[in-house]
Amino acid sequence: MSTTVTVTNGMEEDYLYSPDILNELNFDHCLATYKPPISHRYPGEDLLMRPLCLSDYDRGFIQLLSQLTKVGDVTKGEFEDQFCHMKSCSDTYFITVIEDTSSGQVIGAGSLVVEQKFIHHCSARGRVEDIVVNNQYRGKQLGKLLVDVLTLLSKKVGCYKTSLECNDSMVQFYSQLGFVKEEGQNYMCQRFKD
Amino acid sequence: MSTTVTVTNGMEEDYLYSPDILNELNFDHCLATYKPPISHRYPGEDLLMRPLCLSDYDRGFIQLLSQLTKVGDVTKGEFEDQFCHMKSCSDTYFITVIEDTSSGQVIGAGSLVVEQKFIHHCSARGRVEDIVVNNQYRGKQLGKLLVDVLTLLSKKVGCYKTSLECNDSMVQFYSQLGFVKEEGQNYMCQRFKD
Ligand SMILES: CC(C)(COP(=O)(O)OP(=O)(O)OC[C@H]1O[C@@H](n2cnc3c(N)ncnc32)[C@H](O)[C@@H]1OP(=O)(O)O)[C@@H](O)C(=O)NCCC(=O)NCCS
Ligand SMILES: CC(C)(COP(=O)(O)OP(=O)(O)OC[C@H]1O[C@@H](n2cnc3c(N)ncnc32)[C@H](O)[C@@H]1OP(=O)(O)O)[C@@H](O)C(=O)NCCC(=O)NCCS
Repeated sequence: MSTTVTVTNGMEEDYLYSPDILNELNFDHCLATYKPPISHRYPGEDLLMRPLCLSDYDRGFIQLLSQLTKVGDVTKGEFEDQFCHMKSCSDTYFITVIEDTSSGQVIGAGSLVVEQKFIHHCSARGRVEDIVVNNQYRGKQLGKLLVDVLTLLSKKVGCYKTSLECNDSMVQFYSQLGFVKEEGQNYMCQRFKD
Repeated sequence: MSTTVTVTNGMEEDYLYSPDILNELNFDHCLATYKPPISHRYPGEDLLMRPLCLSDYDRGFIQLLSQLTKVGDVTKGEFEDQFCHMKSCSDTYFITVIEDTSSGQVIGAGSLVVEQKFIHHCSARGRVEDIVVNNQYRGKQLGKLLVDVLTLLSKKVGCYKTSLECNDSMVQFYSQLGFVKEEGQNYMCQRFKD
């Protein structure tokens, strides 16, 4: 599938993954839990959900991430190099954003990262990472929408399971979206730098 | 770095990642915890630690994984396709095995999977996955060696942190190797199929 697509205003956009995969998602099972009923096709007035683009550096993508954690000064070149590295790994990085088309700013983002396996008949597993919604847009179901969409996407691309890590305060948020803390399973970590 | 290397018996091997990265690891800090003192360069008599090879299907790699979890019937073609998919994602899959050169069988394996990030100044994070040692070779520090080596590898390739998931009975094993259960952090999961 092509990932460079002509958009309505006549500009060519370089997407991290094919917008077709996103657009083809069947959201029917999730829809009833949204009031008002938003979806990936209509996240709200003036809002557009789509794959991350090479041009999103200029739409405040890095500044948005800094509301999630430490990002530091990332130059446009560094962003583009990392984008191209990710894109060169097929079927791996599904970073999805929400743009406010009225301001041209990215106001929400989340990642699905897919790991290929040999176990489970050469299956794959998904991981939901780095969910963030601009603080001026919170409480509009956009965080929930990002997680639901990435989870559906992981299933669609063949993952046998999808996981995430979160702090205590977020457990309820993710529980509502179908994630469970499996009895006896532990997350362990080793840090080398900030 | 080249990943196709002429081995001593004159055969060409197709490695998942460059053996140079593995061979260049500095194991000094870990060595003191091994009695007898084994390392990635000398895991034991007749044992060889190296990146996974395309030819490891014929050395019982899939059978070894079935001691870890469900694998199912994986054909040589399926193995090779998945190997090539992984290899096409540069700097991502560092599956490392231990071969018993006397039998020509793979008797230990572990994966380091690296995820590229935009956060933390376009950093990367590592994940240690699918550690398994053939039950006839357990208790010889090989599981520990695999985890130590993959952790060093993750640091060498620039990860700011490396994590893993494990069940309660393995927490002590990984604690000895520097992994900690961070207070307030939770692992959550959603399963789609077996
Ligand atoms: C977490 C975050 C993405 C939520 O975004 P949002 O768009 O405001 O969330 P939603 O509007 O979709 O909220 C959906 C539900 O989750 C609840 N919720 C939202 N944020 C929550 C939080 N921080 N803790 C607990 N519950 C939360 C909402 O109350 C709502 O519940 P309801 O359906 O019962 O009303 C956003 O607060 C954020 O970007 N935080 C900073 C970054 C972060 O912590 N990311 C998560 C890392 S694991
Ligand atoms: C877990 C496994 C890889 C360990 O391999 P191993 O080569 O036998 O382990 P080692 O010899 O390196 O053991 C190192 C230390 O860990 C301890 N240890 C080993 N297996 C352990 C287990 N299952 N639970 C708790 N501690 C364990 C050993 O007692 C030893 O401790 P010591 O240094 O104090 O003597 C192996 O048992 C295995 O393949 N199990 C099945 C697959 C599995 O469960 N993998 C881990 C998934 S998270």
